[in-house]
Amino acid sequence: MDTRFTGVIPPVITPFTAEGGLDLDSLEAVVDRLITAGVHALFALGSSGEVAYLTDAQRDAVIERTVAAAAGRVPVLAGAIDTTSQRVIEQARRAVGLGAEAVVATCPFYAKNDAQEIAEHFRAIAAAVEAPLFAYDVPVRLGGVKLECDMLVELGRQGVLAGVKDSSGDDVGFRRLVAANEAAGHPLALLTGHECVVDGMLLLGADGVVPGYGNVDPHRYALLWQASREGDWARARQIQDEICAGFEIVFVPRGRSADATGIGAFKTVMEAQGTIASNRMAFPVRALDGRVKDGILAIATAQGLI
Amino acid sequence: MDTRFTGVIPPVITPFTAEGGLDLDSLEAVVDRLITAGVHALFALGSSGEVAYLTDAQRDAVIERTVAAAAGRVPVLAGAIDTTSQRVIEQARRAVGLGAEAVVATCPFYAKNDAQEIAEHFRAIAAAVEAPLFAYDVPVRLGGVKLECDMLVELGRQGVLAGVKDSSGDDVGFRRLVAANEAAGHPLALLTGHECVVDGMLLLGADGVVPGYGNVDPHRYALLWQASREGDWARARQIQDEICAGFEIVFVPRGRSADATGIGAFKTVMEAQGTIASNRMAFPVRALDGRVKDGILAIATAQGLI
Amino acid sequence: MDTRFTGVIPPVITPFTAEGGLDLDSLEAVVDRLITAGVHALFALGSSGEVAYLTDAQRDAVIERTVAAAAGRVPVLAGAIDTTSQRVIEQARRAVGLGAEAVVATCPFYAKNDAQEIAEHFRAIAAAVEAPLFAYDVPVRLGGVKLECDMLVELGRQGVLAGVKDSSGDDVGFRRLVAANEAAGHPLALLTGHECVVDGMLLLGADGVVPGYGNVDPHRYALLWQASREGDWARARQIQDEICAGFEIVFVPRGRSADATGIGAFKTVMEAQGTIASNRMAFPVRALDGRVKDGILAIATAQGLI
Amino acid sequence: MDTRFTGVIPPVITPFTAEGGLDLDSLEAVVDRLITAGVHALFALGSSGEVAYLTDAQRDAVIERTVAAAAGRVPVLAGAIDTTSQRVIEQARRAVGLGAEAVVATCPFYAKNDAQEIAEHFRAIAAAVEAPLFAYDVPVRLGGVKLECDMLVELGRQGVLAGVKDSSGDDVGFRRLVAANEAAGHPLALLTGHECVVDGMLLLGADGVVPGYGNVDPHRYALLWQASREGDWARARQIQDEICAGFEIVFVPRGRSADATGIGAFKTVMEAQGTIASNRMAFPVRALDGRVKDGILAIATAQGLI
Repeated sequence: MDTRFTGVIPPVITPFTAEGGLDLDSLEAVVDRLITAGVHALFALGSSGEVAYLTDAQRDAVIERTVAAAAGRVPVLAGAIDTTSQRVIEQARRAVGLGAEAVVATCPFYAKNDAQEIAEHFRAIAAAVEAPLFAYDVPVRLGGVKLECDMLVELGRQGVLAGVKDSSGDDVGFRRLVAANEAAGHPLALLTGHECVVDGMLLLGADGVVPGYGNVDPHRYALLWQASREGDWARARQIQDEICAGFEIVFVPRGRSADATGIGAFKTVMEAQGTIASNRMAFPVRALDGRVKDGILAIATAQGLI
Repeated sequence: MDTRFTGVIPPVITPFTAEGGLDLDSLEAVVDRLITAGVHALFALGSSGEVAYLTDAQRDAVIERTVAAAAGRVPVLAGAIDTTSQRVIEQARRAVGLGAEAVVATCPFYAKNDAQEIAEHFRAIAAAVEAPLFAYDVPVRLGGVKLECDMLVELGRQGVLAGVKDSSGDDVGFRRLVAANEAAGHPLALLTGHECVVDGMLLLGADGVVPGYGNVDPHRYALLWQASREGDWARARQIQDEICAGFEIVFVPRGRSADATGIGAFKTVMEAQGTIASNRMAFPVRALDGRVKDGILAIATAQGLI
Repeated sequence: MDTRFTGVIPPVITPFTAEGGLDLDSLEAVVDRLITAGVHALFALGSSGEVAYLTDAQRDAVIERTVAAAAGRVPVLAGAIDTTSQRVIEQARRAVGLGAEAVVATCPFYAKNDAQEIAEHFRAIAAAVEAPLFAYDVPVRLGGVKLECDMLVELGRQGVLAGVKDSSGDDVGFRRLVAANEAAGHPLALLTGHECVVDGMLLLGADGVVPGYGNVDPHRYALLWQASREGDWARARQIQDEICAGFEIVFVPRGRSADATGIGAFKTVMEAQGTIASNRMAFPVRALDGRVKDGILAIATAQGLI
Repeated sequence: MDTRFTGVIPPVITPFTAEGGLDLDSLEAVVDRLITAGVHALFALGSSGEVAYLTDAQRDAVIERTVAAAAGRVPVLAGAIDTTSQRVIEQARRAVGLGAEAVVATCPFYAKNDAQEIAEHFRAIAAAVEAPLFAYDVPVRLGGVKLECDMLVELGRQGVLAGVKDSSGDDVGFRRLVAANEAAGHPLALLTGHECVVDGMLLLGADGVVPGYGNVDPHRYALLWQASREGDWARARQIQDEICAGFEIVFVPRGRSADATGIGAFKTVMEAQGTIASNRMAFPVRALDGRVKDGILAIATAQGLI
C-alpha cells in the first residue's frame, strides 16, 4: 500500500468569486488551512470540488494552484472525471502533467457497461497514466453502479489500482473490501468517503477518509484519525459525534438540489470562517442565502465552527 | 415548430475499424444509406453513436464527415453531451462550427441538480449557441432524472428549446407533453426515442422519431412515417410489427452490458448488410461474436434485413 | 383466450362513508353506473379498489356486493392480493366462493423471489383455485419487479394463466408480450392498465383495458373500445385525448401520497357526480379537500364530467 | 427506554420439515440454542423468519411455540407484517394474545403513503395493541421507503413507539437517529439490523442488534455485545471480523433469489449444526443444495461453525 495516500484526505472545494469566476486566492487559503489543520493529503477535483461543473481550463487552473499552494507539504490527488476511458485518460494526463501525484477515476458513466468492461476501463487508464490510480466508487452520481469487491482487489493485486475511494455508503461492502484486501496482502489504500461514520470505518480497518465536511472542520478529522491510531475508540466516537453535530448544517436546506445542499452548506460556513470570499456555487447552482444561510450559521456558531 | 427537424431522424451509429479507430468511410456509407432510404434528418453523436466513448477530436471528426456526407440533402443535428452547461457549450459550439444545424443536450449529469437549475442550464446553452437546441430526455443514462413537462413547454414558448428528444419510455408523460405543447401553440418539435411503439406515438401526435434501430432498417421507418401522414393506422401498425420482429435482435445477447447489447446488435446486422466494415464497438465494449452473432444474423435473415 | 375478460374492465373503487366504514350502497351505485356505461367486466379489489387497506372481512363484503350488483350482467374479477402463494390462495378461494369468476394475483412481494420462484407461485395458485387466473404486473407497488414476457406466455400456453393485467408502463414490453402471445396461439387475454395511451395499446393489439380512471368516465372508454373495434383510429385518438384532458385531475394534488393523489382524485369527481356519497379514502389516507378539491372539480366541470 | 428489548435479539428463522410443513420441534431447538448462547430477546416472524410466506395459522403456531420454548427466560417480540394498519392490527392482536411481549411493524407496503400517513399508521397500531411497538425500517423489502428520523423520535417521545429495528443499511441515518433520540431523552430502543458492522453501530450508540446471522452464530454476537459494554472496541472489532468471515456463506449462492441466498445459507449451516432437521425453505423457494451447499459448509467448517 502506498502510505502517502492514507489518513485524512479532504476533497477540496472549489471557491468562486461573487461574479462566478474561479477564486484561486481563496483556493490557496483553503489549502493552507487544511494543511495547517493536519490533513495528510488533498483531493482536488472531486465531487465536492464541483468538478463536473468545471471546464478543462478551469480544472487545470485548480490543479495548478492546489499543487503550488500545497508546495510539497502533502501530496495532491486529482479527480480525472469524464464519461469513458479515453476521455478520462486525457483528463488524467493533464492533471499529472500539472503536478498531481495520483489520479482518481470513476467507472464509466452515461455509457452503460458491465463488470468486465469496467475492469478494462481501469486497466486502460492505469496503463496510460504515470501515476497511482484510485477507483472512485460513487453510485449515487453514477446511476447506481457499484464497483465489485473482487474486481477491485484483483486490480489492486495486479498493480492497476493503488486504492479505492468508497463513497457508496455501503458499509457492509466496505468491510468485505477491507477483509479481501487484507487477505490479498493489502495492495489497496481503502479510503472511506463517509463523513459521519468515520469512527466505525477506521475501527473496521479503513486506511483513510475523504470527508467533504473536512473542508469545514479539518482539525477534528485529524484528531479523530489520531485517536484511531492510538486505539482510543471512545475518544474517536466522541470526536465523531462532535463532527456529526456540526454536519447537521447539510440538513438545513430543504427542497434544494443535492449539490446546493451539501457543498452549498460547506461553502456557507467556510465563507463565515473567512477561508473563502464567497459561498457562490458553480452555475447553475444558486448559493444558499436568507433563512437557510442563517440556519446553517446558527448551527456552525453553536458548534464553535465560526 | 421548426419543420426541418421532424419525421424520421436516426441517431447515426459511429463505425469503428477492426483495429478500433474511427471508420469514417463506413460512416459515410451509413449516412448515404439512411438518406437514400428516406429519412428526414440525421442525429450524430447520440447515445447510439457511442458519443460518451469518443474524445473531442473523434467527435469533431464524426460531425465533419456526417455533414460532408449529408451534403445538404438532410439537416444534421449533433449531440453536445457533457456533464454541465459550460462543458456542453464548448461541445455545442464546436459542433455548430463544423456544420451541425441543431444541437441536442441532456440535463446535467454526475452533477445533482433540481428543476430550476436544469432550466437555467438549458437557457445558458441556448444563449451561447447559434443553433436550435433540443432537450434530450434519457433518464436511463442520467440516474433516473426525467425532464418535467411544464418546464419543457415553457422553454419552448420562450424560444429556448426547439424540441425534445424523449427517450424516457414514459408514454403517458409524452402524451401530456404533446397536449401541453399543442395548447401552447406547438413551439416544440417532439421526437420519440421509441423504436417499438412509434405507431402509437405518431397516432397520439409525435412530430418525429429518433430510432436507434433505424440504422438497421431505415426504410420501414420511412414507410411507417408515410402511413402515419396518410392516417393509415392499420398499415402503420403492420409496419411497426415488422420492425419489432427485426428488433428482436437486441434480445439475443444475454449477460452483456446494455451498450454491447443494443448498439452491438445494430452494428452486427449492419456489418452483414455491408454498410459498415466491422461491428467493432468503442473500447472497452467487446463486439458481439460467436453464437450471439449467429443468433442475431438468423433473426435478421428471417426478417429480410440481410 | 377467454373472451369474457376482454374489453373495458375498470378496477372498481371502494367507497367509504364519511365515518370511514365501507359504503356498500355507493359501491352498488358505482357498479350500476359502470355497467350502464357499457363496460365489459369489473375488477374488484384492485389497487384502485384500495385492496391493500381492506381487512379480509371488508374484502369479502366488497366482492359479495359487487357480484350481487353486477347480477350476471358482466363478469367480476377479484384481486387476491397478498404477499405469497399460500396467503394468496386463501384470498382467492374466498373470492371465488363469493362469486368472483376470475382472480387476479401479483408476484410475491415483501418476499424477494426470482423468476423461477415467481412461476412456481402462479402455478400453485392456479392449481389451488377453481377460476381463471390473471397475473397482475404492477412493478411500482412491488419494489420494481417486472414479470417476464417469456414466463407469462409459457404459463399461458400451459393453461396456468388466463391473462395478464399489465400496469408496468413498459409499452415496449407490452408489445413484445402481445407478439409472443400471438405466436403462441393467443392463450392470454392481455389487458393494459394504462389510462392515457389506450388508443396506442389497442392499436398494437391489447385485448382490453383496466383503467382506474374508468371509474370516472366509463362511457368514453367504452366508445374508445368501440372505435378500436371498427378500426377508426383517428376517432380512437380523439376520444383518448378527451379522456386525457379529464385525467389531468390526478396532477392537481401536489405533495400528497400516490394513493391520495390518484384514487383520491377519482373519488372526488365521483362524489361530485353523485355516484358515491363521500370521497373518503381508507385510513390513513386523508381525503382531498380545499383548494385541491376545487382544482379537481374545475377540471371535471370543464371536461363535462359533472 | 424499555431495557427488556436491548442487546442481542436474533430474528428467529422458521424451520420446515423436508415435506414443507412447519417444523416446530426444530423451532424449539433453535430457541433453546439461542437462549443458551446468551441472546437477550427473540424476534419471531421477522423477514428472516420468512413471515411473508406463512399463513395466519402458521404465524400463530410459530409464536405459540416460540413463547413456550422461551418459557420466560427472554422476552419474545413478534412481527406483525401486513400491508396496512387494520391488517397489521389484526396480526398484532393475535400475536399479543399468544404471548408476544412486543410487536414489530413496518410502514404500509403495496399501498403508497407519505410521511404523515405513515405516522398515522403507527399511531393507529399503538392505540389498538396492548404491547410496546417497534417500527421496522426495511426499505429493501418496501419499495425503497425509508422511515424519517424526526418522525421516529417524535413518535418515541409521544409513547407511540418503543423502538426501531433499522435494517435500512443507512448508517449515517442511523447515527442521526441515535443522536436525535439521545437529545429527546432516549425514548427509543434503537436496534441495528446489521450483521457485519455491529461493532461500529454499537460504538456509535446502538441499543441492540437484530442479526439474521445470529441464528448461525449467536455466541459471537453475545461476546461482541459484552465487549462493547466493557468498551473493549479492539476486541469487538476482532469478534466482528470473525463473524464476517463466517457471514461469507451468504455470498456463495449466485443467481438465486435474495431470500434463497441469505436465509437459505443460514438454514444450510444450521442443518449441519444439527439445530434444525432440514434446510428447507418456504414455498416457492427451493432449498440450497449441491455445490452451493458444499461451498457454504466448507466456509462454515473453516470458521468452526460446525
